[in-house]
Amino acid sequence: MLEMITKLAESPKTIERICVYRQLLQQQQAQNKTHIFSHDLADLAKVSPSQVRRDLMLLKCVGSPSKGYEVSGLLEHISSLLSQSQVQKAAIVGVGNLGRAIMSFFYGRDPNLKIIAGFDSEDHLSGRVIHGCRCHNVKDLEKVIKEEQITVAIVTVPDSVSQEVIDKLVSAGIKGILNFTHVRANVPDSVFISDVSFSAQLEVVAFYAKLKSAHT
Amino acid sequence: MLEMITKLAESPKTIERICVYRQLLQQQQAQNKTHIFSHDLADLAKVSPSQVRRDLMLLKCVGSPSKGYEVSGLLEHISSLLSQSQVQKAAIVGVGNLGRAIMSFFYGRDPNLKIIAGFDSEDHLSGRVIHGCRCHNVKDLEKVIKEEQITVAIVTVPDSVSQEVIDKLVSAGIKGILNFTHVRANVPDSVFISDVSFSAQLEVVAFYAKLKSAHT
Repeated sequence: MLEMITKLAESPKTIERICVYRQLLQQQQAQNKTHIFSHDLADLAKVSPSQVRRDLMLLKCVGSPSKGYEVSGLLEHISSLLSQSQVQKAAIVGVGNLGRAIMSFFYGRDPNLKIIAGFDSEDHLSGRVIHGCRCHNVKDLEKVIKEEQITVAIVTVPDSVSQEVIDKLVSAGIKGILNFTHVRANVPDSVFISDVSFSAQLEVVAFYAKLKSAHT
Repeated sequence: MLEMITKLAESPKTIERICVYRQLLQQQQAQNKTHIFSHDLADLAKVSPSQVRRDLMLLKCVGSPSKGYEVSGLLEHISSLLSQSQVQKAAIVGVGNLGRAIMSFFYGRDPNLKIIAGFDSEDHLSGRVIHGCRCHNVKDLEKVIKEEQITVAIVTVPDSVSQEVIDKLVSAGIKGILNFTHVRANVPDSVFISDVSFSAQLEVVAFYAKLKSAHT
């Protein structure tokens, strides 16, 4: 198992696809589907069928040629690989619209990954509980993160304070950061950071919308 | 130019990287940097230097071995390729926290891509202007989109109504959709859809946070 995890960890893109497969498989299960073919999973995940087969082969999962992969078996396998059955705690820095949207989005969704703390510089938020998540003043960031042993952070602050906040998170002991700001922050090798770019994603959509409009 | 665009359009991933390069180059320009080497742009964009060189070669951009690429020239070239100098209008369906966060995020950011309408089923939002964006009842979706010639839509509604809303957008003439719901919706080939998965991205971060914690 550890060897497989180390191999997988070489590519964040592979891990992301596997997380997407898991979500899709959960939806299939909710619809009472017991089996799925690689080309159907590929269609849903918008990747090629051979990509799905390569990814699942890395996980040492094999499907039956006549029925495809067993949904529940695949789900169990992926979940044990990803979650390793230990609860992880996350924090959000920046409790504006985006921070709240993310809190609400994840509230109760994943029992193994819980957003338990929010930080903001606005005093009036301190002590409030929003979507199950207690808010603190950003001054208490280091203290709360250490006390609660939080390892994951989501950053939704203005660009201007992004690097400063990320430095504080790193020194508080955070090991993984999901960064919604436009700033490509510097972090040491001991911390993983992933940047989410809404604008790039919207620009891609706008580019294709223009092409598709030209064709009709 | 058209030939280059058609070639690029074969890969949404390439378009997305180019959009990211553009953002990074704009930041470099704001810091008064006139030139950039491919390995520095690669570091910022978190891709390999050879990937950057391949992408820019597709755009027929060449750098100087001693100074790298000229930032302003590269920016101009990418912008003319992506925006084609024509303003595009976008709408958001679902004016909750996430919808508002996105409105605020894009307000005034890109003069060639404007979010001009919001739709929601909550009556009290109708007629309000949020971050420069007028809100309407979702019942008027088709009428407003046609009248305003909106071609791009951002979907931030609950999963349960996602496919229904996307069907309405398609029949109203929308050509590009950025989908924030968990539902992989069906759209005809004449429409481009891109799914944003927060949860998969957070799961990836949590996975690496666990690995990094184990190593310290």
